[in-house]
Amino acid sequence: MHGREIKATWMRGGTSKCWVFDREELELPDYTVDEVLLRLFGSPDPRQVDGVGGGTSTTSKAVIVSPSSDEGVDVDYTFAQVGIEEPVVDWGSNCGNCSSVVGHYALRRGWVTPTTPTTSVRVRNTNTGQLIVLELDTSGDDTVLSEIPGVPFPGEAVRMWFVEPAGRTTGELLPTGRTRDELTTPHGTAEATLLDAGAPVVVIDARSVGLTGDEVPAVLDADPETLLRLDEIRRAGAVAMGMAATPAGAERAVPKLVVVSPAPEGSDLRVRMLSMGKVHPALAITGSVAVTMAVATPGTIAADLAAPHGDRLRISTPAGIVETVLGEHAGRPAVAVTRTMRELADTRLVIGPAALPARPAEAVAS
Amino acid sequence: MHGREIKATWMRGGTSKCWVFDREELELPDYTVDEVLLRLFGSPDPRQVDGVGGGTSTTSKAVIVSPSSDEGVDVDYTFAQVGIEEPVVDWGSNCGNCSSVVGHYALRRGWVTPTTPTTSVRVRNTNTGQLIVLELDTSGDDTVLSEIPGVPFPGEAVRMWFVEPAGRTTGELLPTGRTRDELTTPHGTAEATLLDAGAPVVVIDARSVGLTGDEVPAVLDADPETLLRLDEIRRAGAVAMGMAATPAGAERAVPKLVVVSPAPEGSDLRVRMLSMGKVHPALAITGSVAVTMAVATPGTIAADLAAPHGDRLRISTPAGIVETVLGEHAGRPAVAVTRTMRELADTRLVIGPAALPARPAEAVAS
Repeated sequence: MHGREIKATWMRGGTSKCWVFDREELELPDYTVDEVLLRLFGSPDPRQVDGVGGGTSTTSKAVIVSPSSDEGVDVDYTFAQVGIEEPVVDWGSNCGNCSSVVGHYALRRGWVTPTTPTTSVRVRNTNTGQLIVLELDTSGDDTVLSEIPGVPFPGEAVRMWFVEPAGRTTGELLPTGRTRDELTTPHGTAEATLLDAGAPVVVIDARSVGLTGDEVPAVLDADPETLLRLDEIRRAGAVAMGMAATPAGAERAVPKLVVVSPAPEGSDLRVRMLSMGKVHPALAITGSVAVTMAVATPGTIAADLAAPHGDRLRISTPAGIVETVLGEHAGRPAVAVTRTMRELADTRLVIGPAALPARPAEAVAS
Repeated sequence: MHGREIKATWMRGGTSKCWVFDREELELPDYTVDEVLLRLFGSPDPRQVDGVGGGTSTTSKAVIVSPSSDEGVDVDYTFAQVGIEEPVVDWGSNCGNCSSVVGHYALRRGWVTPTTPTTSVRVRNTNTGQLIVLELDTSGDDTVLSEIPGVPFPGEAVRMWFVEPAGRTTGELLPTGRTRDELTTPHGTAEATLLDAGAPVVVIDARSVGLTGDEVPAVLDADPETLLRLDEIRRAGAVAMGMAATPAGAERAVPKLVVVSPAPEGSDLRVRMLSMGKVHPALAITGSVAVTMAVATPGTIAADLAAPHGDRLRISTPAGIVETVLGEHAGRPAVAVTRTMRELADTRLVIGPAALPARPAEAVAS
């Protein structure tokens, strides 16, 4: 049909749906990548009915990739959170779930040569500078499938190594130089571990704020007083980590608040994570990296509560167990998280005749 | 990649997103079409995260088409509402919005030869037996675009003629033989027009139930007492039309309740439609056909309130004006509704190795 076509692959990565594009596919004359993405996704529109976006934050995501020219990196990968009701694309962070699809995509595009039985794909996330090494099963035995919390169907497992995750936001694993800090808030003082790895986090013991730690997210979300108290601690932590000048000036997305408590049977530590003013239904990938590094750092609140089995850490979340591994890649410390992924569709997206915002006549002379 | 591939076209039809399949694409050995659709869409799962469904009723729809062998019909079209949280496919009704994409698809597949300046595509909806004639602009001038309520981007207009829509459910335009009936409900009696065209409907005057008729859907939806009273009238209408033995036995989806009131400036009649216990954000396509036939039938409540201009009827809905035309096709009465549509993506969907429910070994011997 008429209209321009753009090649894209739709993939489920972890608990997200991600639209994957070769970088050059989004480079249209006269339009910015933001404009092209917004139009393809059907934004702004709460339903994204005239585009490929799914009308929720976990289904309005783009993965933009190209082969890397850098030694030690196979693929450059940029993540874009495409606005839904607002015509805005956010380039400020990575998505751990979408990261899991990049290796498979690179193999399919021939950017990486498979080895047996596994293939490592070195991916650099350009939003954060984070090197992520993806380990894929390329044994040819495609009956090996795994499950993860939040996805009711099994998929191919991908192990993602976050290499040297410490200090990417603040420059230090422990931005205050201490494993524990006393934070002052309008409701009194609170003891916290302030740590930056994967994402900057403020870790507190559930019992220190009158919680048990096994609260259901919906119940906590319906308790504005507790949420306010927890957010005050988070904001005080932001100031102590040098991320904000005042509590009111702290961002909503970071640092994240991680509430830890003794593990139930079959796990090593229990967590509830607060992000954007709400309790996360499971645990962000970046949050699981931070928790792992906190457990590995003697003297932190997480380390004193956790009972890990060797290098494996089984984190109990509201959605189930998230397992991480503490190890190394090429001699550098690294944390691994396993996600499942699958290709949903190989597509050519259509930008119709009225697809892009109108330009002044001189800009679209054709 | 490994896994079976199924060709599909993703199209926006009116206010719905529809996955369009050649009938034979869904015919997989050892599996029913229901099983294949549910797996492709990622059901059951409230988020449909591992499939192409969008997690809402308007984005979990399939259009299954094939060239027709019948004289007078170009395309046989079956609509499927794919369950989201339940592993159930509903084949019981048509979707007016998705109907609008079938003509375009048939042209692209070469099943119909285009004419200038417009092309008519005769589509038989197999769920209902309804013949729908789609009029497409094939003048080659693809700058002619239209807008409809509920879609923030313009698209190609398609005029859909519903040919002889009367009596498809009950056998008669006026199932009781009268233009007005007195219905008895637990809250007293109510005057209604009971009519079957496009869909069976119970039409009442807003003022007869203490409403003004310009109520905002969200406000009515938050008023359980009024909703209950309206549903009692709807259920009493179902019994009077012979669609249920008792009010409690009436289906939730049909008949629909249509609340009419005098038109605001720039329209001919105002409506609020109740479906599935909620106020429709606009007006179902089938509901607009019913309202048009009601206005065209002297003595009905809608006819006495409406002030149509010739054959055109401008219906004021919460989302804006829906315009219909009363006319004929090949000498038979027909009602036209205009929708816009566009192709979103040309795709090959992947059913991975674990994509379909497991079969006993003897059934999948390979």
